[in-house]
Amino acid sequence: MPGLSAGVLEGDPRALARVLTLLENGDDLGLQVMDRLFPHTGNAWITGITGPPGGGKSTLVNELIRHYRSQRLRVAVIAIDPSSPITGGATLGDRIRMTEWHDDAGVFIRSMASRRFGGGLAQNTLAVAHAFDAAGFDHILIETVGTGQDEVAIASLALTTVLVQVPGTGDGVQTLKAGSLEIGDILVVTKADRPEANELARDLRRLKTLVFDPHELAEGWQQPVVKTSALSGEGITELATAIANHRAWLQESGEIETRRIAIASTEISSRVESALRARMLDFRDNRNGDLHRLVEDVVSRRLAAHRAAERILHELR
Amino acid sequence: MPGLSAGVLEGDPRALARVLTLLENGDDLGLQVMDRLFPHTGNAWITGITGPPGGGKSTLVNELIRHYRSQRLRVAVIAIDPSSPITGGATLGDRIRMTEWHDDAGVFIRSMASRRFGGGLAQNTLAVAHAFDAAGFDHILIETVGTGQDEVAIASLALTTVLVQVPGTGDGVQTLKAGSLEIGDILVVTKADRPEANELARDLRRLKTLVFDPHELAEGWQQPVVKTSALSGEGITELATAIANHRAWLQESGEIETRRIAIASTEISSRVESALRARMLDFRDNRNGDLHRLVEDVVSRRLAAHRAAERILHELR
Repeated sequence: MPGLSAGVLEGDPRALARVLTLLENGDDLGLQVMDRLFPHTGNAWITGITGPPGGGKSTLVNELIRHYRSQRLRVAVIAIDPSSPITGGATLGDRIRMTEWHDDAGVFIRSMASRRFGGGLAQNTLAVAHAFDAAGFDHILIETVGTGQDEVAIASLALTTVLVQVPGTGDGVQTLKAGSLEIGDILVVTKADRPEANELARDLRRLKTLVFDPHELAEGWQQPVVKTSALSGEGITELATAIANHRAWLQESGEIETRRIAIASTEISSRVESALRARMLDFRDNRNGDLHRLVEDVVSRRLAAHRAAERILHELR
Repeated sequence: MPGLSAGVLEGDPRALARVLTLLENGDDLGLQVMDRLFPHTGNAWITGITGPPGGGKSTLVNELIRHYRSQRLRVAVIAIDPSSPITGGATLGDRIRMTEWHDDAGVFIRSMASRRFGGGLAQNTLAVAHAFDAAGFDHILIETVGTGQDEVAIASLALTTVLVQVPGTGDGVQTLKAGSLEIGDILVVTKADRPEANELARDLRRLKTLVFDPHELAEGWQQPVVKTSALSGEGITELATAIANHRAWLQESGEIETRRIAIASTEISSRVESALRARMLDFRDNRNGDLHRLVEDVVSRRLAAHRAAERILHELR
């Protein structure tokens, strides 16, 4: 176990892969390793990239990897896939990408199926991010499909969140809810080679002024709208610059402390809630135990369910 | 408060309406009333009716109300609507139906928006059902749209579950997952006047033999497939008979005890989980409290999040 954490800290990819699996499985050994890794975290920059399916996120992430690698920065990707619980989250696109970077020790791509974890997705994503952080990766990209509540929540675990929008889906900016616009520190219009890209970028800029308080806009972070194109290679440098600018702004304004506090709170809460749920399930599965007697009292109408619940809550204390 | 419970037990609709609101809001007064009502429950028959949107469930429920009223039985309906949190759950169809039965004291229709309650839907539905039960309603119909996990779970709170399928949606029985077939004690094919109805009924009968163990089929309850038509009035008497047969079978086989235990367990668990979640939220919202100090320890990397969670769990005991 000290071997495992030392392996991760030294950048051994096999030790890292093993620890990631332990962490994803909620293995106790993984948490013991985390105790040793955690003091070495806090150096990586974590960027969440979220947007609709088919919006070109994987391509964008791939271009970002290429950009960071050209600067010799190490990049880890956590790709959260809501759609394929069976394959463990690795879509075909992920696999192609993994093959592309397979021989580059400076890139590590991990796919996770969101459904696999139930309520534990936030804690698992952050645990995996901590491991990458301790292993010395400079950039951690969390890629999620921003359709469900969960996926949007995952995006908010990042220090910088990139919200991807794709032009020419017919309904333009109307699909974008105000709430989801707010989570994006940077707005990206992918497939900028399409004729509708300029219109979408303009709409986003206009929508921004509608959604945000003008005073806040003047004082705070100015959400940039960046157009990118995988075809022409346009926009990737601008996006990386926007991420760097956001990072600098968070640090200069002191907002980074607020954001780190929010993320830590989410991580702790997520762990507490999972543990409480597990404790309750244990209690319920113990058929011959106290719960069973309480259930019988409820069935026979001697005790109302909410009073039975009170007694259990007393026991769980 | 004794006045309120006495009012419900005497069948005063205004007392009942007030208690339902208290229960839905999780008001402590509602629970005190429930303490007095609960010993008087266990007499009503609770039937869950679930199926896809647009499957004719509301019409079916209306026909069932008419059938039971012709026998002078009192009917309460809990209509759970996932789609309209704003209106409090009352869809247009519900409102028309409510108007139709408005002057009949033997019918009480209550709409609830599923989203309003978050994790507390099961407990709220059962609390409302208990109140109807104590108020002397003979039949309680819980109507849910069986698309989400939650709605299916609600259907399982009933003693008899009716699974509605609608013919001519183009994809026939293929949309029906084996899991959702299993929750139906009775399978109903609505809109039986459509030419595809016979085919769907035949498919359902065939699917049944594929899903269930043949031995179990021979021994246990034989899921009937009932065709109903609002146009011709066909099938409602058969459906009411099927519900009565299922009730008799549960009682004769002793299976009713198993089912009541499962429902009581769900109700208790639902209440415990909600309370634990609320306790955690209290803890989190207390910004200057222990959680805040733990969060700062995590942000400064002195303490890993899972250890912070352990301390909170210790405190919550």
